[in-house]
Amino acid sequence: MTIDRLQTPALVVEQSVLQENLRLMSAALPGARLRPHVKAHKSTALAKLQAAAGHHHFTCATIREVEGMAAAGLGEDLLLANEVLDTTRLGLVVTSGARVTVAVDSAATVEAASAGGIREVVIDVNVGLPRCGCAPEDAGRIADLARAAGLDVRGVMGYEGHVVAVSDVDARRAGAEECMARLLAAHELAGGDIVSAGGTGTYAVNTWANEIQAGSYVLMDTAYSALSDLPFGPALTVLGTVISTTAPAGDIPGWAVVDVGLKSLGMDHGNPTIPGGTVWFCSDEHTTWQPDEFGAVRVGDRVRVLPAHVDPTVALHERMYVVDGEDVVDTLPVDLRGW
Amino acid sequence: MTIDRLQTPALVVEQSVLQENLRLMSAALPGARLRPHVKAHKSTALAKLQAAAGHHHFTCATIREVEGMAAAGLGEDLLLANEVLDTTRLGLVVTSGARVTVAVDSAATVEAASAGGIREVVIDVNVGLPRCGCAPEDAGRIADLARAAGLDVRGVMGYEGHVVAVSDVDARRAGAEECMARLLAAHELAGGDIVSAGGTGTYAVNTWANEIQAGSYVLMDTAYSALSDLPFGPALTVLGTVISTTAPAGDIPGWAVVDVGLKSLGMDHGNPTIPGGTVWFCSDEHTTWQPDEFGAVRVGDRVRVLPAHVDPTVALHERMYVVDGEDVVDTLPVDLRGW
Repeated sequence: MTIDRLQTPALVVEQSVLQENLRLMSAALPGARLRPHVKAHKSTALAKLQAAAGHHHFTCATIREVEGMAAAGLGEDLLLANEVLDTTRLGLVVTSGARVTVAVDSAATVEAASAGGIREVVIDVNVGLPRCGCAPEDAGRIADLARAAGLDVRGVMGYEGHVVAVSDVDARRAGAEECMARLLAAHELAGGDIVSAGGTGTYAVNTWANEIQAGSYVLMDTAYSALSDLPFGPALTVLGTVISTTAPAGDIPGWAVVDVGLKSLGMDHGNPTIPGGTVWFCSDEHTTWQPDEFGAVRVGDRVRVLPAHVDPTVALHERMYVVDGEDVVDTLPVDLRGW
Repeated sequence: MTIDRLQTPALVVEQSVLQENLRLMSAALPGARLRPHVKAHKSTALAKLQAAAGHHHFTCATIREVEGMAAAGLGEDLLLANEVLDTTRLGLVVTSGARVTVAVDSAATVEAASAGGIREVVIDVNVGLPRCGCAPEDAGRIADLARAAGLDVRGVMGYEGHVVAVSDVDARRAGAEECMARLLAAHELAGGDIVSAGGTGTYAVNTWANEIQAGSYVLMDTAYSALSDLPFGPALTVLGTVISTTAPAGDIPGWAVVDVGLKSLGMDHGNPTIPGGTVWFCSDEHTTWQPDEFGAVRVGDRVRVLPAHVDPTVALHERMYVVDGEDVVDTLPVDLRGW
């Protein structure tokens, strides 16, 4: 099939860029040094490409992601990097033979892990982002609670999410160092082998964690593309069709409308980008934009829309189409949606 | 089942509020005076409640919505209020016996409608929102093109989307009047019976259109709830579980984290609202918020999160749970997602 036959809006992944992103990351962080975060793509088919690149330990954000990865044969070492209160379904995944480790940061989450049949945990540590995680100095106490509940404490995790998008790479490294000092202090108290942290923005500068939870690197978005030191290319776009144009009139420039809108784009990082034009605003199923050359755009044209944030964009679609030039060479179901 | 058994995050609809919203709207705009927009809920089960309230003509935003409504037996009169270039699937819906009318605003969309087996169109008119729609003075020409292509022109539509959220009701009415003057001028040129416009914000003040395309009224969101003259109540919330808390320390107030984030909330209108607290920020699967009374919130508590924009929120979920007090009394599949 060729790309012009795709129903729009459609998620499109450039095969060559995807492959280069996989290659660059596995060269920088081979094997278990990277624990790819599947929340960025929610696709077991794409996770299998990451496994083929040498990464067999994965990070998940939801119970559904853990279940789906295990069912797809990718359950060698799954870390659910979020706290969970209802662990019944996770316990069933453990019973099925997959290895599932869960983040805990409180007595309540330790108790829930134990009650649901989880056997292994990491202590989630607040390294500066006000979200989940215990205080570094509390990590030993939580680890003791976990061991007393019969759980194996594999180590610590802490996400420097407030640092990953700092534009200056030296400031980003310094921020990561400060965060990781907190995580290493917690590690001293909690024990275990794992020191898990990081994201696409800090994959190269966070040299203190022994595994990096990067996810966005494989598809990328305009937010991460703004970091000029990152070598990864934008692999994902939302393909749309121009459905309407309005010619310039007096002082009002001409505009075009493409059938890509709020329901096919993650909007939390703001508007998408359309090369060769300026986005005005998005509606449910539309983006209104001003082409640099109005006369070059016609109703029926195909347009590539670059989302600002990849993760929630992918979660709105049922599948991604991998393309090589004009050819659609593969389909990656987004099979890990929901909770 | 009781609500405390629901896996979170979960869309929850208060039955009493839903019923009152349906009642208020069908009293104000009975029968075909309302053409409910299914994009707001993407659920044929909820559309059946609207049909039971007397509304049998519906507005759709996507081909999938048209297909699903027709397959659910709700195809008496479906208006696809967006332009479409690939009309093959819509033609099949017409062949199946449903009545499908499509918006056109150009020679290319007229041609596509005719080529795909569509028989009826409305002329989409730009009434002031820079999006789709021909200029009012061009409506006669487009209608002539459509008739020459063998299409029946049922009338005109034009959405005053830039007016529906104006907070002052008199200014909103004046804005709608200006827009509808354009639409009525276009109607003079285009002919047909239908003058379709409006939304939840203008359902009461737009007295010029003969059918109103409101959708949000049935579930509501914080954006529309800000309009104090609207009688509709917030029926939809996202139920979450508190998974982590961090106690106050020095000048830093305490915060809590609920498992409702960017992937369960439409974010284009900004952050959600949590009654009794202040939202700090959202992550993929989390909202970090500051409770007014920190001590009153514990890990494991259930929290209702009010989304800022209902339409893209619903599109992220597989189903809605209708609740009456603590009881889950019905499940509404969100079966019209995708394209």
